[in-house]
Amino acid sequence: MPRRSFSCAVIIKLNPDLPIGIFDSGVGGLTVYRALHEQLPQERFVYLGDTARVPYGTKSLATVERYAVENARFLEAHGVKLLVVACNTASALALPAIRASVSVPVVGVIEPGARAAVAASVGKRIGVIATEATVRSGAYARAIRELAPTAEVLERACPLFVSLAEEGWAETDVARKVAAEYLTDLVGGRVDALVLGCTHYPILRRVIQETVGAQVRLIDSGEATAKSVEAALERENLRRRSFDTATGRLLIERVRERRLCDDLDHFYVTDAEERFARVAERFLGSAPTRLEAVEVWGHDELHPA
Amino acid sequence: MPRRSFSCAVIIKLNPDLPIGIFDSGVGGLTVYRALHEQLPQERFVYLGDTARVPYGTKSLATVERYAVENARFLEAHGVKLLVVACNTASALALPAIRASVSVPVVGVIEPGARAAVAASVGKRIGVIATEATVRSGAYARAIRELAPTAEVLERACPLFVSLAEEGWAETDVARKVAAEYLTDLVGGRVDALVLGCTHYPILRRVIQETVGAQVRLIDSGEATAKSVEAALERENLRRRSFDTATGRLLIERVRERRLCDDLDHFYVTDAEERFARVAERFLGSAPTRLEAVEVWGHDELHPA
Repeated sequence: MPRRSFSCAVIIKLNPDLPIGIFDSGVGGLTVYRALHEQLPQERFVYLGDTARVPYGTKSLATVERYAVENARFLEAHGVKLLVVACNTASALALPAIRASVSVPVVGVIEPGARAAVAASVGKRIGVIATEATVRSGAYARAIRELAPTAEVLERACPLFVSLAEEGWAETDVARKVAAEYLTDLVGGRVDALVLGCTHYPILRRVIQETVGAQVRLIDSGEATAKSVEAALERENLRRRSFDTATGRLLIERVRERRLCDDLDHFYVTDAEERFARVAERFLGSAPTRLEAVEVWGHDELHPA
Repeated sequence: MPRRSFSCAVIIKLNPDLPIGIFDSGVGGLTVYRALHEQLPQERFVYLGDTARVPYGTKSLATVERYAVENARFLEAHGVKLLVVACNTASALALPAIRASVSVPVVGVIEPGARAAVAASVGKRIGVIATEATVRSGAYARAIRELAPTAEVLERACPLFVSLAEEGWAETDVARKVAAEYLTDLVGGRVDALVLGCTHYPILRRVIQETVGAQVRLIDSGEATAKSVEAALERENLRRRSFDTATGRLLIERVRERRLCDDLDHFYVTDAEERFARVAERFLGSAPTRLEAVEVWGHDELHPA
């Protein structure tokens, strides 16, 4: 994350007790939410899933930028101290546009994922599976080659993985057949690390691992991003310092039991909250209780570009 | 189609030489366009695919209504004599809202599909496969029971079929496995007619037929809708009467060769025209040449509800 993206004047104003904002094109970003919660159990989160316009992975640069900026402005207006772009497609295509539109620090998932892949890959032969738009953008290949200029990067779009994850078919014969089809080029030692470059893919982790073989390290960008967010909070002196005693007790207990705080965190969707709750249960183990449908468009008038 | 939906005053103003408007949430409606073109080769068409907000099948009633009305107003403003709602989800959820918003005749795909299914089913045991939103709306079951009150209707959402069709995997082992999984309840004589209640499904027709068995009649709502549109044009005296000599000669030649007129018809998308062209080629055999990206939102200001 380039330091120039947020000035000192802004940092002074940010309150460490504010929540962290996360947005995704839909429900997939909950895998990033889960990783963030595990890495930073004392933090609170506001999650926005743009379910009215999901998916982003088949859409154009201009459209993804517009949607991403609207989401970012919605979360900024809600009062967050840092913004996590959980959606790989939005991170790959729209990070500069988002950073130009809000004044809080912004962390995307591409750079942390690329860094983790480079660290994990011994032979510097790295596979990336992602949406059509992310693959077309070449963002992962660029980020990987910035860190390891001689790395060989093989990218592959796997659009059916999203429907399989949302349908709850992650560990079926269908999923195994689809994985075998998509990952043909990536088996047999062609790569030694594989980036799961779409928030839905960690749900299919087991089938993907079986298909590419145990010797390939799978990189979950969500986990890598959670570590980057922790470093950014530390650097900017934005770690949460206080909470009331009751919440504090609850949190300590939950962290001990490794449970989620989906009743303390706030979840917003732009459409169809029932469906979100149903799929969220599949992703998190329980449905968020503080879930609300909102409109994020039209915030442009408040913040002219 | 209830007659009350368009008044005499409006019919007088409509010009039979205007094109027919078709809209869909994306590329799937091209199967309806193809059926319309085959049924009505002398007509010209304007197609709108709302690719910026596709899919509709996982979204809520309010959102589908809003998107559908915006699409309908865009096509009305473009000058069409009749509007075909090719999208099953929009037809199931938003037909009343669309009819209240435009003054041209509107034909959806549900009623024609239901009528064709009732005509084809001897035992009046009818299956319907569609998107989550269409199934949840119960629109097909209602339309079928209006025509045959004692009919047994079995509905099943098949969300993965859409990705399979768009991925070009219509006749693969994966498609066969997915079909076997979704259609379990519909095989073994449970139904004798099956409505393909999503515009993408005719692309998987062969695999669906294999799965349910040759004795089940598959109903393509697109084909049934084309017949309804022909009847509506006849009734409203809106059949195209004239065209210039060069176009006339071209059309006669094409009709003889059963070829599409995708260079005479106009195609609009709200996003990602390259992807649309690529998938369209898979659906039509050739990519449309007159293809343009447009914005359909914001027409509300011109036509306050």
